[in-house]
Amino acid sequence: MSAQDFHAKHAEQLDHAVTAIDAREYWSPFPETPSKSVYGEDAAPAGEAAFKALLGQDYPLDQPGILEHVGTEVSPFGLELGIRYPRSEPAELIAAAKVGMIAWRDAGPAVRAGVALEVLHRINARSFEFAHAVQHTTGQAFVMAFQAGGPHAQDRGLEAIAYAYAEQSRQPRSARWAKPQRKGDPLVMDKTFTAVPRGVSLVVACNTFPTWNTYPGLFASLVTGNPVIVKPHPGAILPLALTVSIAREVLTEAGFDANLVTLAVEAPGKPIAADLATHPDIRIVDFTGSTEFGDWLESNARQAVVYTEKAGLNTVVVDSTDDYKGLLRNLSFSLSLYSGQMCTTPQNILVPAGGVRTDAGDRTPEAFAADLGEALDKLLGDPARAAGTLGAIVNDGVKQRLADAETVGAVAHASTPVEDPEHPGATIRTPLVVRLDAKDEETYTREWFGPISFVISTDSTEHSLDIFRTSVQAKGALTASVYSTDPAVIDAAREAALTAGVHLSENLTGGVFVNQSAAFSDFHGTGANPAATAALTDPAYVTGRFHIVQSRRHVPA
Amino acid sequence: MSAQDFHAKHAEQLDHAVTAIDAREYWSPFPETPSKSVYGEDAAPAGEAAFKALLGQDYPLDQPGILEHVGTEVSPFGLELGIRYPRSEPAELIAAAKVGMIAWRDAGPAVRAGVALEVLHRINARSFEFAHAVQHTTGQAFVMAFQAGGPHAQDRGLEAIAYAYAEQSRQPRSARWAKPQRKGDPLVMDKTFTAVPRGVSLVVACNTFPTWNTYPGLFASLVTGNPVIVKPHPGAILPLALTVSIAREVLTEAGFDANLVTLAVEAPGKPIAADLATHPDIRIVDFTGSTEFGDWLESNARQAVVYTEKAGLNTVVVDSTDDYKGLLRNLSFSLSLYSGQMCTTPQNILVPAGGVRTDAGDRTPEAFAADLGEALDKLLGDPARAAGTLGAIVNDGVKQRLADAETVGAVAHASTPVEDPEHPGATIRTPLVVRLDAKDEETYTREWFGPISFVISTDSTEHSLDIFRTSVQAKGALTASVYSTDPAVIDAAREAALTAGVHLSENLTGGVFVNQSAAFSDFHGTGANPAATAALTDPAYVTGRFHIVQSRRHVPA
Repeated sequence: MSAQDFHAKHAEQLDHAVTAIDAREYWSPFPETPSKSVYGEDAAPAGEAAFKALLGQDYPLDQPGILEHVGTEVSPFGLELGIRYPRSEPAELIAAAKVGMIAWRDAGPAVRAGVALEVLHRINARSFEFAHAVQHTTGQAFVMAFQAGGPHAQDRGLEAIAYAYAEQSRQPRSARWAKPQRKGDPLVMDKTFTAVPRGVSLVVACNTFPTWNTYPGLFASLVTGNPVIVKPHPGAILPLALTVSIAREVLTEAGFDANLVTLAVEAPGKPIAADLATHPDIRIVDFTGSTEFGDWLESNARQAVVYTEKAGLNTVVVDSTDDYKGLLRNLSFSLSLYSGQMCTTPQNILVPAGGVRTDAGDRTPEAFAADLGEALDKLLGDPARAAGTLGAIVNDGVKQRLADAETVGAVAHASTPVEDPEHPGATIRTPLVVRLDAKDEETYTREWFGPISFVISTDSTEHSLDIFRTSVQAKGALTASVYSTDPAVIDAAREAALTAGVHLSENLTGGVFVNQSAAFSDFHGTGANPAATAALTDPAYVTGRFHIVQSRRHVPA
Repeated sequence: MSAQDFHAKHAEQLDHAVTAIDAREYWSPFPETPSKSVYGEDAAPAGEAAFKALLGQDYPLDQPGILEHVGTEVSPFGLELGIRYPRSEPAELIAAAKVGMIAWRDAGPAVRAGVALEVLHRINARSFEFAHAVQHTTGQAFVMAFQAGGPHAQDRGLEAIAYAYAEQSRQPRSARWAKPQRKGDPLVMDKTFTAVPRGVSLVVACNTFPTWNTYPGLFASLVTGNPVIVKPHPGAILPLALTVSIAREVLTEAGFDANLVTLAVEAPGKPIAADLATHPDIRIVDFTGSTEFGDWLESNARQAVVYTEKAGLNTVVVDSTDDYKGLLRNLSFSLSLYSGQMCTTPQNILVPAGGVRTDAGDRTPEAFAADLGEALDKLLGDPARAAGTLGAIVNDGVKQRLADAETVGAVAHASTPVEDPEHPGATIRTPLVVRLDAKDEETYTREWFGPISFVISTDSTEHSLDIFRTSVQAKGALTASVYSTDPAVIDAAREAALTAGVHLSENLTGGVFVNQSAAFSDFHGTGANPAATAALTDPAYVTGRFHIVQSRRHVPA
């Protein structure tokens, strides 16, 4: 198919997406259910077979500057992966990226969006293959790997495409300007407005959500006309190698240069992100990962516009509830999902010393922590089901942090190993809950990435809100949540969240969890606190990726 | 009137403005003609009287932290000004700015836009007073001071209000999200989306266009919920003191804190912009001025989002024309208007050594430069009319640069003094035109702000386009223009302009000049080259000034 065909094929969905980002109601273009009725009879076994065929092989990716093939991935589930990826000379990737840039610019936003949508649809058709790739690089359990690594990531990608297309389409392609004159005919000019790309874009991906956190930047940059170099985390290359392969395949079919999208793999133990991100020809950087490196990029990649999603102090303010069981069920699932290895998992749970007023009586911080521990035990009592929620520990850093966290306070719920009958080699751990006091701020104002949460005793809910506001203003957060039956407390929590610049979930006791955000409705991050410089995705996330350049001329009389 | 009344009063114009920014056809809400039929019988004398009443006085501005009154302005027309402005302790202005911020945030975009529009309308009603203030601080001739400092600046302010309002209104204030479930009722949540301001905003203004270059940032920040501290250039305080006074008056009437807009005057010879711009509580910086300080701000004001408009190499590529007289008339006026003291005035005029093909025969670079000199003499032959075009030299820096420029090449048109019968004390100079060769790049790749232009001999038009593209990519430009009768050259010039990231005017021979841009139609700057980090104004210019923060909650069954 040609580029125009791709645009025509997806035009209706693009229009729908543009409507959806403005309405922010429910819309999920890519079905999240890994079922045969949606993805076809053969999709599951075909996806598994495609994944297995890659194991132990040189990954087939024909791009410029290949120096050698390297393999750095280790499955948290113990599967031997042994895939070796082509490692290219970064300077050659940058040079190659620029070759096709003018043709890509000249194609215009609509054609670019069509090509990007075709990429997403081909990714979607291979969601089972992606699910295995994500599972065995991140440690997510299979169903989560399918959903978060597949359709949910694809939804976010489409959301980015919609914003990129909409913002470039705001100005007309041309306009006639006619200025009345006091005497005689008006002054008339024709004007042309062209969206021009900022330049070569670099996406630095993370270990835990290689697709979900990469697709917004990748597609936002691509649709605004920029070539994209994808730098995967050395522990999670496959999901992005697949993505890059598909993008190159579609670009080629559409008549564009495949090198508009390339993969920048690093040699074992030799990070390349810092050098790449500060290269003068890299003009856009998207990063998900540690606060330390994110801050470094913001300070040092001065030639680029830098979008970072880092870490923060996700906070829960517990004041009162009329559904204590629902609260405990919801919160214990939030702590357990993917072993708390989400940038959105709650860490600091603030409980007034005077106790939480509940429909099961008042609960002191100590009692509350014990109840939360019991809820975790109940949720994770069956090993097979527990493994399906917890997934596996992604790397040794998380294990070390767990060991450290056990010593900082009174352990209310110990982190214990879980045996997954399906994956005997996996490292699986239940969440650790430690009790702290409000004065232990040296401990809880650091981020403890992994299944580590603190029940923190405060003087009062007012004190809790104060800690929430000041700690998030200082250190950032991606999520916040409040439980209260008192409208005045809810109002105060909303005010604190607005001041701290963090999204707030209120009284979650059902099937919505604070660590999950829905594309096309929930914003992920705000840009208003130190945890992230941008939301994924909104207009601010795309407007810096292109510029409008105009030309004007008199209209012949 | 209340805040709601202001909104209602101006709602229709706001809607019109939002439509206009998308259409980019002709629209000028504030009439540019300084005539009685538009502004009323008494407007001119009343404006002059109001201006004169301020001379030699302490300027009446009641704001926090006043330490003393200082006067640093010198009229380029020789008028004794003697106005002393309150100088406030900067830390007190910042502290005071934050007091009213939450109420201003809670007012919402529509109310804020209404208040801002009322400010603009009151400014518009005092356009004659502003014209005198702008004339005697910038050196612009009266009519230009009226237009560029008055209605044109007001149009740009309204354009910024429209972008700020539109971008904040893209997301709904609330949405209901209903996710279908496989069994039972859908999951339903109500979500609230709030635009929250980034924080205290600083506008660092310039000497030459105190209102035109300040209003976009001032109104964009204010309408997105941010308090604004206006830091005028010490040579052009009055136009911004008037602006701040009016803003404070309207804010107070609307029930908001007047300290949402304050004036940060500096003591003579003691610049405060660098300290202010790097204060941790300053979260937005808008700057117009030198490349050196603009670059410094971009590197050092890391806690803020920084919008700069600096300097560049505005370039004219001359290939051929079928209206040589029109070309010379148009270009000589562009060089003369306000003595070339516009950030948009052409500096580098590239002419092929083989000559320009014209309807008056082929013209070598030497002949072209001589013809341009003659056109300047013709335009500026009558001293009174010349003064009305040239205005006065704004400061000694420009005079020194003129002296330096006379020595860098062959003078094709000397800069000579003009006696303005109306203002015998004014320093008025005609434009200097110097001939250079393409190899003199050390000279012409620097910016020579003022009435200084170079006719540069190149090997060919292709060579001219190459110099245009590479020099603008490296050093930036705010304008570019091309003259050619050859469609292939026009195409190549458009391509070069897209690559260099600069707006292009083609074959201007009539009443439109390359150094003028029309609000609501032309973009000013692109952000795509080093001359500016942003266009004034477009969506990218406002989306970084606020964030969307959401809250969500279950809908009771």
